[in-house]
Amino acid sequence: MLEGQESSLVLAADFKAAMRRLASTVTIVTSSSEGRRHGMTATAVTSLTTSPPSLLVCINRSASIHDPIAESGQFCINLLACDHDHLVPIFSGKVMGEERFANGDWMADKTGIPCLANAQANVFCTVVRTISHGSHSIFIGNVERVVLFGNSSPLIYQEGALFKSIAINI
Amino acid sequence: MLEGQESSLVLAADFKAAMRRLASTVTIVTSSSEGRRHGMTATAVTSLTTSPPSLLVCINRSASIHDPIAESGQFCINLLACDHDHLVPIFSGKVMGEERFANGDWMADKTGIPCLANAQANVFCTVVRTISHGSHSIFIGNVERVVLFGNSSPLIYQEGALFKSIAINI
Repeated sequence: MLEGQESSLVLAADFKAAMRRLASTVTIVTSSSEGRRHGMTATAVTSLTTSPPSLLVCINRSASIHDPIAESGQFCINLLACDHDHLVPIFSGKVMGEERFANGDWMADKTGIPCLANAQANVFCTVVRTISHGSHSIFIGNVERVVLFGNSSPLIYQEGALFKSIAINI
Repeated sequence: MLEGQESSLVLAADFKAAMRRLASTVTIVTSSSEGRRHGMTATAVTSLTTSPPSLLVCINRSASIHDPIAESGQFCINLLACDHDHLVPIFSGKVMGEERFANGDWMADKTGIPCLANAQANVFCTVVRTISHGSHSIFIGNVERVVLFGNSSPLIYQEGALFKSIAINI
């Protein structure tokens, strides 16, 4: 192996290790296209601006939900609560396509986009901008509607496993 | 108040409430410009692609660190650990400018970018793309170097307070 190749492999491994320490809330991003529902776990979601309310989600172009979001221009970010841990493997590849929605309490808004009834929040977005970067698209969504449910109890992904949070200094 | 204004205020409030439930790891983003150090807490950080290693950070254009990143094209994401909770108010506005760095164990890489010696990870990036959206810039950084320290113990921000994580089902 050439020295440059080796150092780039080390960098990639170190970057992955660092990102595993970047704990983040597990969401399921959903969309609908041609009457079919699509859903996938996503942690690369972040708030962007509050005026107007907007967020972004990074999706690999090879993911099955990528084209439905690109084509419909609509998606929903469902913020999972601690007791949704059983949905994570299902929406991460253990089950494929529409069958994923046989698990969990799914409803649909008037446009047919699936939303999880007891998610911490459903954030319905319209794509206002798509930035292609390497293997991924960054979808910037303007927020059209928000539904809040229950108390704050985020399901957290860190080091390849699921966590909940507890307040510091108590 | 007009009906449209009221509904947009409700949407903005609901969006903020939803985003407070999107628990995320607290980082301090740092940069250096014209010999001066800049640092600010940031939670809007997410992994983008692994090949090449890249991430993005969303920064308000009114933040004092915005122009130093834009001008230098360099930044470092320092992933805070649980015991860095005391740094959060300091790097969120309680202390201004260079004086922030009197708190915490700060070093500098050869380009002068400050890095926190005992952060969970220091991720040094070169800006490869800047996307302006509303009040914010999205800086996409290619990762140049990563330093890992200690075990995974992310400091988490949720509902305006600081948390640590514990594994589910133990």
